[in-house]
Amino acid sequence: MKYCACIRFVGTEFHGFQVQPDKRTVMSELMAGLEQTFGQPVKITGCSRTDAGVHALKFYITVEVENSTLPPEKLPIAAIPYMPKDLSVMKAWMCDEDFHPRYSAHGKTYRYTVINEKVPDPFLSDLAWYLPRKLPKDALFSIREAMKYLVGKHDFSAFMANGSDVTDTVRTVTDLHVETDGSKLDFYISADGFLYNMVRIIVGTLIEVGFGRFAPSDVAKMVEGKNRKLAGMTAPAQGLYLYDVSYENGLFK
Amino acid sequence: MKYCACIRFVGTEFHGFQVQPDKRTVMSELMAGLEQTFGQPVKITGCSRTDAGVHALKFYITVEVENSTLPPEKLPIAAIPYMPKDLSVMKAWMCDEDFHPRYSAHGKTYRYTVINEKVPDPFLSDLAWYLPRKLPKDALFSIREAMKYLVGKHDFSAFMANGSDVTDTVRTVTDLHVETDGSKLDFYISADGFLYNMVRIIVGTLIEVGFGRFAPSDVAKMVEGKNRKLAGMTAPAQGLYLYDVSYENGLFK
Repeated sequence: MKYCACIRFVGTEFHGFQVQPDKRTVMSELMAGLEQTFGQPVKITGCSRTDAGVHALKFYITVEVENSTLPPEKLPIAAIPYMPKDLSVMKAWMCDEDFHPRYSAHGKTYRYTVINEKVPDPFLSDLAWYLPRKLPKDALFSIREAMKYLVGKHDFSAFMANGSDVTDTVRTVTDLHVETDGSKLDFYISADGFLYNMVRIIVGTLIEVGFGRFAPSDVAKMVEGKNRKLAGMTAPAQGLYLYDVSYENGLFK
Repeated sequence: MKYCACIRFVGTEFHGFQVQPDKRTVMSELMAGLEQTFGQPVKITGCSRTDAGVHALKFYITVEVENSTLPPEKLPIAAIPYMPKDLSVMKAWMCDEDFHPRYSAHGKTYRYTVINEKVPDPFLSDLAWYLPRKLPKDALFSIREAMKYLVGKHDFSAFMANGSDVTDTVRTVTDLHVETDGSKLDFYISADGFLYNMVRIIVGTLIEVGFGRFAPSDVAKMVEGKNRKLAGMTAPAQGLYLYDVSYENGLFK
């Protein structure tokens, strides 16, 4: 039997999603908690790997068990006693045997939160990138100009961390925009897939555009150049959120 | 020389404000950090004691040093490298020698956050009281009725935790109201002073009124009875925030 569940976690105290020996990861906590919930071994598959410190608002997993009478709508509540406080099962459904939370996904959306303040709010210090130097007045204009060169189908090699063994580096960015609220900037980026550290390198580069270290048109040259050295810095993990994953026909909403 | 500073902290990992042997407290972290910032011993006085797990959005302290050329407006930034991530100095001013953050206060406002949801949001699990059982439809009406008996000058003995050695138990509640946003209830309570656990017992009692375990008019009887046994439960610490402190003439705004 295969359940699909939407989970949410604060990434700060996790060494990412995937199981790693002797490290606290989302998957290892989920396995321990859901084996208790179901009273039997479970097989868990996630929609994405995430790095240490990265958060998730909607992260999809499948949970496979031999046999269970637990209705999926009861799973979030049944799991509460076995979940740590930085991880919750928010919703659950039954799904087809051939559904895969990663390969069945049509696309994903990430949010990246920057706060342009000198003094960090302790309630948000692990939940955003605190940028102490004030962005100039025209920063948003330049950032939005630069974004235009990233939307669409491109080879994003320049925005992939070195050391990745991915060979097909073409991705389609379907949306990239920034919303502001006082000193907070929320970047939203949707694509059919993402290369390793792609969102963090894009945001780091856009912030450098904001400071005038790159011209907006330089971003076009980065895309064309296909070389990591051409793009800007990698924004830190704590500002990054997996915001949502899209599946066929609004499945799992 | 006497500085006044407004600090903010997430209470989760602190054993309250006051120094205690072998425990991590706000005051001990402040002392260690501000001694580094000023490069000399400091004397710190706080506006309030807070319990373990209680948060503060605006908590006022004085910082006394022998002599310093540090302008107060630079203190928040100068302190950043020496502060833990759950504590920040938000603003600072110079103040008169006779100013005392506790005795000079005219009143305080606390906020208490309740979230009426079964599954806790991991981003808020330590920042609110999660109430899994759904409040009935007329709960807010009863709660607002009951609040009327608490506003004004009363003997709040029934709303004071046992074991306190305070003898004058009369306080004036100047405002008590609740704001709702979806499943979230924010209680705001302002008074010239508070007895030990007074806010948490008031909120616990009001929630019990919401569930119909007490009638609104029972709250009048609790006040008259002056006995802790008459009032309701003590709401847990993690929903409580010191929201603001008022001083003469809008000082420190």
